Amino acid sequence: MQVTAYGARSGDRPLEALTIQRRNAGPRDVEIDIAYCGVCHSDLHTVRDEWGGTLYPCVPGHEIVGTVRSVGPEVTRFKVGDTVGVGCLVDSCGHCHSCEENLENYCENGWTGTYNGQTADEPGHTLGGYSQAIVVDEHFVLAIRHPQDQLAAVAPLLCAGITTYSPLRHWNAGPGKKVGVVGIGGLGHMAIKIAHAMGAHVVAFTSTPAKRQDAIDLGADEAVVTREPEELAAQTGSFDLIIDSVAASHDLDTYIGLLKRDGALVMLGVPEHPHPSPNVGGLIFGRKTIAGSLIGGLAETQEMLDFCAEHGIVSDIEMIDIQQIDEAYDRMLRSDVRYRFVIDNASLANAA
Amino acid sequence: MQVTAYGARSGDRPLEALTIQRRNAGPRDVEIDIAYCGVCHSDLHTVRDEWGGTLYPCVPGHEIVGTVRSVGPEVTRFKVGDTVGVGCLVDSCGHCHSCEENLENYCENGWTGTYNGQTADEPGHTLGGYSQAIVVDEHFVLAIRHPQDQLAAVAPLLCAGITTYSPLRHWNAGPGKKVGVVGIGGLGHMAIKIAHAMGAHVVAFTSTPAKRQDAIDLGADEAVVTREPEELAAQTGSFDLIIDSVAASHDLDTYIGLLKRDGALVMLGVPEHPHPSPNVGGLIFGRKTIAGSLIGGLAETQEMLDFCAEHGIVSDIEMIDIQQIDEAYDRMLRSDVRYRFVIDNASLANAA
Repeated sequence: MQVTAYGARSGDRPLEALTIQRRNAGPRDVEIDIAYCGVCHSDLHTVRDEWGGTLYPCVPGHEIVGTVRSVGPEVTRFKVGDTVGVGCLVDSCGHCHSCEENLENYCENGWTGTYNGQTADEPGHTLGGYSQAIVVDEHFVLAIRHPQDQLAAVAPLLCAGITTYSPLRHWNAGPGKKVGVVGIGGLGHMAIKIAHAMGAHVVAFTSTPAKRQDAIDLGADEAVVTREPEELAAQTGSFDLIIDSVAASHDLDTYIGLLKRDGALVMLGVPEHPHPSPNVGGLIFGRKTIAGSLIGGLAETQEMLDFCAEHGIVSDIEMIDIQQIDEAYDRMLRSDVRYRFVIDNASLANAA
Repeated sequence: MQVTAYGARSGDRPLEALTIQRRNAGPRDVEIDIAYCGVCHSDLHTVRDEWGGTLYPCVPGHEIVGTVRSVGPEVTRFKVGDTVGVGCLVDSCGHCHSCEENLENYCENGWTGTYNGQTADEPGHTLGGYSQAIVVDEHFVLAIRHPQDQLAAVAPLLCAGITTYSPLRHWNAGPGKKVGVVGIGGLGHMAIKIAHAMGAHVVAFTSTPAKRQDAIDLGADEAVVTREPEELAAQTGSFDLIIDSVAASHDLDTYIGLLKRDGALVMLGVPEHPHPSPNVGGLIFGRKTIAGSLIGGLAETQEMLDFCAEHGIVSDIEMIDIQQIDEAYDRMLRSDVRYRFVIDNASLANAA
């Protein structure tokens, strides 16, 4: 099957319309007509080869929502016409400890990314959601139970949603717990909404005074401007969990100091330049932890989608046509988006 | 009560014999004749004011074993003649969350160290175990159930033992778990013995090839020489827990890479110069944690002592007279001790 996509032929060229091949659906495959695809920072870094290792042509996109067009004969969980999602991964080994524990995101033999992952399909690496359709093993397909008019805003849940839901669940965010969220962007705004829905007391941290009210509107109980030392000091030793969504290099000791005994600071992003080395004493005097968390497993992603549907949670988005992607990337780099761009994939029909 | 002690009058003077005052025992106090006191690195750093904040005269020592000489009328857990221990702390607020959860070592209002801690007693700060006797609130006194001929070797359990036991317990060392121990010194050699007794598979890491056999003799199932890259590589992704007892600045990424998914690297020492900043990506791709741990609570310390008595665990020690303390410090700085010096406090009788 040939479909229209949008991607880059090399790291120094802008995205352009491409015709790509999708594999014929195998027995366990689901063919999906893509309606919407969220725009993640990873898309930009990968397409520009800023992390190295990008395979071209590169078609990014791993926040995919669409409709099932056909299913293979062994597919049991989906039927034609179902609304479904695809997130960051489309394959894993299936037999390591992590896969057996439904944590395919930590597959010990390396999972296959929805784009730029090794595959037997043409052209040898996976091509993502900036395209009209995709073919995915049903294990990596999620059921979407949100109302149809929310589907564009559901797309970012497939990466930004699960990336924040997973650590919030794993570190037991909920009633009686105080949860901090550092950075109010694509990830952070989802963390605020989800932690609030879980029943935690949520405090947002932002360097931008103008975002204070935004954080409250998103569901934060308090918002702290990180340039105000007294505001930070007032929070000392009070957090069970802090989710840090800021990938730029920054001081971690500030947040370690805000944790209670046994509290955890969970990092979601890899900085280009290392953070200043955290003070080990800050961990020791309070049995505190710095941890990391990566997306989530498939079962957990379904749980997150169902949780969000039940609680009426979607992403705050700005919809774009695929032809606006370069402008969207530029604005994303300036943090000028509240809080996620989502591509209307219908616009690909005009791109061929 | 006046007793002979050994301490420093200032940071640039050697330790010398001092006559110090102990408070009259209050209703809940236990008066202890000190038989043995272990020599901890903290003693040396404090007495020389290397961490700043040392109050003089300074009498160090917080690995104390002795015999109850008298008890106040409200003391219920001890009687004259009992063998008892005192560790790193002799007071805490008693009413914060940590104290209420028997984690006085994380007292939110600051616990009182066995030496160099604020107290109403003369001279306004606590004086430690390099002395003939000490008076301690019974809450901070531990029962020792080891045989009498092991008491000198029990002393280091009060700091080195609990400092390693507590994180091993907290992070669930036991059968089926693979536990690494970095550094084979005062702390590390206890961590090996205790983790082994808990039933874990224990791997010791040392930079010193000559310590390989020592680690096995202590109870390690394997010993890895950290200068041998192939030996390290063979351990990749296999540890549930690594206890890092090395306080000198070193690369943490090596050990993060050796952890399994959800594994924890637990730091016990504060380096003089920061460790190189750990790679956050190493934490994210495996939901791993770097944590810290500080000594242990009183209930946990009693549990550790009972565990060690039951399993026949003591420290490997070299006994010294108090007059040899300077030489012992020098050798300790060269790591020339297997694995803990313990003072025979009877030698204080010759010091006055």
